[in-house]
Formats: sequence, C-alpha cells, structure tokens
Amino acid sequence: MVKHILILPGDGIGPEIMAEAVKALKIANEKYSLEVELEFDDLGGAAYDHYGVPLADETLARARAADAVLLGAVGGPKWDTIEPALRPERGLLKIRSQLELFGNLRPAILYPQLASASTLKPDVVSGLDILIVRELTGGIYFGQPRERRTLDNGERQAYDTLPYSESEIRRIAKVGFDMAMVRNRKLCSVDKANVLASSQLWREVVEEVARDYPEVELSHMYVDNCAMQLVRAPKQFDVIVTDNMFGDILSDQASMLTGSIGMLPSASLDRNNKGMYEPCHGSAPDIAGQGVANPLATILSVSMMLRYTFNQVQAADAIEKAVSLVLDQGLRTGDIMSDGCRRVGTAEMGDAVASAL
Amino acid sequence: MVKHILILPGDGIGPEIMAEAVKALKIANEKYSLEVELEFDDLGGAAYDHYGVPLADETLARARAADAVLLGAVGGPKWDTIEPALRPERGLLKIRSQLELFGNLRPAILYPQLASASTLKPDVVSGLDILIVRELTGGIYFGQPRERRTLDNGERQAYDTLPYSESEIRRIAKVGFDMAMVRNRKLCSVDKANVLASSQLWREVVEEVARDYPEVELSHMYVDNCAMQLVRAPKQFDVIVTDNMFGDILSDQASMLTGSIGMLPSASLDRNNKGMYEPCHGSAPDIAGQGVANPLATILSVSMMLRYTFNQVQAADAIEKAVSLVLDQGLRTGDIMSDGCRRVGTAEMGDAVASAL
Ligand SMILES: CC(C)[C@H](C(=O)O)[C@@H](O)C(=O)O
Ligand SMILES: CC(C)[C@H](C(=O)O)[C@@H](O)C(=O)O
Repeated sequence: MVKHILILPGDGIGPEIMAEAVKALKIANEKYSLEVELEFDDLGGAAYDHYGVPLADETLARARAADAVLLGAVGGPKWDTIEPALRPERGLLKIRSQLELFGNLRPAILYPQLASASTLKPDVVSGLDILIVRELTGGIYFGQPRERRTLDNGERQAYDTLPYSESEIRRIAKVGFDMAMVRNRKLCSVDKANVLASSQLWREVVEEVARDYPEVELSHMYVDNCAMQLVRAPKQFDVIVTDNMFGDILSDQASMLTGSIGMLPSASLDRNNKGMYEPCHGSAPDIAGQGVANPLATILSVSMMLRYTFNQVQAADAIEKAVSLVLDQGLRTGDIMSDGCRRVGTAEMGDAVASAL
Repeated sequence: MVKHILILPGDGIGPEIMAEAVKALKIANEKYSLEVELEFDDLGGAAYDHYGVPLADETLARARAADAVLLGAVGGPKWDTIEPALRPERGLLKIRSQLELFGNLRPAILYPQLASASTLKPDVVSGLDILIVRELTGGIYFGQPRERRTLDNGERQAYDTLPYSESEIRRIAKVGFDMAMVRNRKLCSVDKANVLASSQLWREVVEEVARDYPEVELSHMYVDNCAMQLVRAPKQFDVIVTDNMFGDILSDQASMLTGSIGMLPSASLDRNNKGMYEPCHGSAPDIAGQGVANPLATILSVSMMLRYTFNQVQAADAIEKAVSLVLDQGLRTGDIMSDGCRRVGTAEMGDAVASAL
C-alpha cells in the first residue's frame, strides 16, 4: 500500500537537515519496499513568505490527506516582528491542533558515543533513556478564553486559561501507560496538584486509567520536584507523562541532559497513530545555510515515523543502526564534536548514514 | 528600635532546623544589639493539628504585626489525605498572598567547599551565583475563576486561570532590575510569549520598566529554552525574573544545580521590604526527628532577613562568614557529606555556626 508522506522543511536549518532525512528515507524505501510517496510544502516562516500565513489551508488539507508528516523546524528572527497571529509558531500550533496530534513522544537518550557531550557527570547520565509523553493539543496552549483587556482602574491585564477534560487526560494517560508497557513499566505522572484544579483532575483520571495497567508502577510527582530530580538523578525515570506546558519545559530540560539535542527526534500522534515527526531542536537561524547543522535528529525522526505510523520495525531499526555506525566511525557535526573525532558537515553526515544504510 | 520576628517552625524537620537558626539569631542579637524579639506560632500541618486550619486568623494577625517572619518548612504525608483546602501548602499560599509578599528571591549559589556535590561537571557550575526573582502572589497560583465542572456531554473538566495585570508585572520587574543593579547588571526575563497572552503583556511591561534602568542589560528567554540553558551553561545568568509558576519550576531546577539545596535560603518581600524568610528545601518528613537535617539554609535565611528587612549588613555578613568558616572546618551534615569531611548532626552544625559567630 502506498504511504503518502508530506514533507515540511520549514525555516532556518530545516531545508538542509530535511534534504539528508529524505536521502535516508528514499534508500529505506527501496531497500524495504516501503512504497512511500513524498509531497513537499511550506510551514512557518516559509509558509508566511509563500502564502501569507504560517499554515495555508491547502497545506493543512495535504497534511490531513497524508499518512504522516515529516517536519524540519520553524521560526527565525526574520519573522519576529510580524503580528503574533501570523508568526511561524502559530503554524506549528495550528497543525498540531487541527490534526489532533495530542500524543507527543520526546525521548531523551544518551548515546554512549556522545557521553562526554553532557554537562552532567558521566555516572549521573550514562545509559540515560527517558521517554517524555507530553499532551500536545490541550491545556493552556489552546484554552479559551484568553485575552488582553483593560481593568476598571485603567490598567492593562492579560490572561490565559488552563482547562483539561477527563477525556483529554485519559487518552494521553493511556499513551503514557502503553509506552511504559513496552519499556520498563514505570510511569511517573507530573502535575502541580497541590496548587492547580486542572492538576487535581489530572491526577484523579491518571489513577483511574492505572486500573487497566496493573503491571505498570505508577508514581506522581510535582513539576518543581521533577525539574529537580531530572538534575539530581535522571535515571530514576522511565516514562514521564505530563501536560502541554510542563511537558514543553521538562522535555527541553531532559533533552539537554544528553548534551546532544541535535540527536533527538520526536513524534506527535493522533488516536490512530497517524503522526507528525520532527527533531526536538529548533530552526537554529544562527547557523542556517552554512551546511553545518546536525541532520541526525531528523533522520531519526524518519525512523520513528517508520516505527510508529507504518509499523516498519525492520526499516526503523536499520536507520537507527546506521546512525549508530556513523557515530562509531567517529563522524561528528559541530554540535557533538569532541577530541579525536572527525568534524563533518550536514551533507557529509547524511551521506555517511545513507551509505551505512 | 525593637524588631518583632514571628517564628513559624512548621512541619517535618522544620522545628529542628529552626532551633539552630534561633540560636544564631540570638547570638547575632546580642553581638550587634539588634533588639529582636521573637514570637512563635504554627503554620501548615502543625497549625492544622493545633487550630484545625493551616493558617489561623490569629497567626496571620501576628504575622501582619511582626516586622519579619522566619519559616521552617511545611507539609508531610500525615496531612496528604485531608481535604485539599486544609492542606499545609494552603497555609503557605495564604500567608504569601495575605501579606502581599510578591517578590520572591531565590539565590542559587555554589559554595566552593561543596563544589563536588553538584551532579554537573565542575567547570559548568564552579562559581555559580544566580538569583531567581519569582513573582509570588499572582498568576495561575491565585487566578480566578478556577473550578471543577461537568461539561454538557457529562465529562468532568477542571480549569485554572493565569492572569497578570501591568502593575503586578511592573513591581516584580522592578525588583528584578533593582537586584541586577546591585549585582552584575544582567537581567533575563523568562516567559512563554510565543504562546501565552499573559506572557506577551509580561514582556511588554518589562520592556517599559527597562527604560528606567539603562545600565542593566535586559534579555528575554522562553521558559523551555531557559530550562535547557540552566543545564547547558548556567553561568550565563545573573538575575532571572519570571512569573509564579515558571519561577517555581526554574528555581527548583537552579537550586539543584548546586547539589546542595540544604544550603539555600530564600526571601519573600512586600513593597516595603517586610518579608518572610525560609529555606528553599522542603520539610523532608523522611528524616524528621532524627537530628540529621542541615540547618544552614535556615541560618542563611536569618542572614537574608537581617540584610533585606533590617538593613543590618554587618550582622548578615557575620552569619554568612560563620557558615563559610564551618564549611572550611570540614563539618558536613549528611546531605552535603563528602570524603575527608566530618559528618555532624543538626545541633552540632548549629552549635558550630554559633561558636564561629
Ligand atoms: C515553538 C513553540 C510554540 C513550541 C511549543 O512550545 O510547543 C516548541 O517550544 C516545542 O516544544 O515544540
Ligand atoms: C508547596 C508549594 C505550594 C510551593 C509553591 O509551589 O510555591 C513550593 O513548591 C515552593 O516553591 O515554595
């Protein structure tokens, strides 16, 4: 069966790293007879420049029709001054919400070859392998009402709303438990139930879902404590499930523990495991166009896509193995460079993965 | 002039560590003729047990009448099952809000004597000295409406509100700039202005306040990026100013970078620099009553009180120097223990500081 994949290179280093991911995808396609067909379009700043909006209706329609979406990265100083509703991030938030991609998987894995890149001591992070499951289409990111208003005393005030319904919590909790079941069966649900009404419901519903997963060891942790524990002893975690805003913060913190955010892919899934895949890092406008960006997170996003949306475990494994091999060979882009290794550019790294495949 | 100080030992290790802080305070009182008078009362679980509420009206009245409040810590499993509105944290939130203690100062300092306690590599954290200024009486902690309700489809839903007015933002921004002025003149304002309406106003108002502080170098950073940067290169920061929830998370993360959260004091100030002072760490119910808790954060909270509320710089410096001396002598409680040092209990540590004073 033909698999339609929509490719959105986006902004900054997006097009460069995507070119390498597409290379890997095309090789996997031939080798494993995946029958993928690629379409290309714009998102974020590139879409603003092309269509006048960060996500055009026709792009959204293409994304809906596709079986999976592969995204580079969005944003950059060029679009920092346009009106907020048209900025690149808005396109990203809209596609997440419109495709109902509520289940965001963000692994934080320390590659043994890159252990020295972490700012944490080796014994604290060696072997680190955490999965953060972030709720991606609810909470304070999308809650209504949100507005700017003038108070009776003439002051400006602005407010946001943080809502969660039990079905929103239940479906993301299930993703958390399902992931724990295929990993080490430990799930930590992170909230701020000592302060927030939404977190109290969150905790209650997670407890209800837990009844269906007696084999998973569930714990609850406050978000401030979790931010501490990720620094103190990150290896205590297996899977973390949390809301949209806490997940935004904690997944970035966790990814930086590995010292190589240029290595980390992510998946955003809907209820049918249709998904959008993208590197955890941003569009890095400071190095865009120089051919030095690390394409591995995007290449590993292809692997996640083959695994989660298309169930092509063999092809997914092969890509991961190819990446590992290239690291073993001592090839490094600037962000993960260390003594005794060979510094390569984006294309050379992509080519190396392609030949390893 | 007599200075009235209300002492709230609280729960868990609170009473033990407070006893040592009171020792230091009494010595400083005599030596520097501070004219302090101490009153004692309950907060948190201890108040629930005594008064049936986590903050009694008479305690609040005493706190209002006092010139400063010194707090141990609140909370513990004993009160985990009582109704949410009566839990220990509620007393803490109420006293912050009722006394309008909007300016929360949380230093993250790495003591050279304790450098090895950090889980981060020495070069990343040596000499670390950050101050986090957290807004403490607004935002999502106190925003109305917040409730649990039933949606039309029968589902439970809960929501919180995150409001900020310009006067709330302006007064905490000023604290941030004032602190930067007496430090290294660098202020980083942390928000999520690419998503939240409240953050967009936050950023605007911080920019307005910045006009009065041309000597301070102001930057803005998204909260997710800040959580990353605190792991990657924490020494890039001097003062960070942020909202209540982000400050809760980032200050805990920052304090753990030092590896010795048992060393960190905090201040919560109102518009007249009247304040409540407390250690950054919690009530540690697991080690309560064993006489092993580290009293230094509470002792250093006394020093902060003398400095910020009473302007007794000499006495404040003397306490800090005494703590440093005791560390030089190699005395360590269990939480900061390392090879070649002498392990002491709470009282022995307090006595050592007292004699150094
Ligand atoms: C760009 C921004 C809106 C986005 C978010 O906050 O979700 C990003 O930080 C992320 O984590 O994907
Ligand atoms: C106990 C809790 C309500 C409190 C907070 O969230 O403010 C604590 O975490 C803190 O940081 O002082």
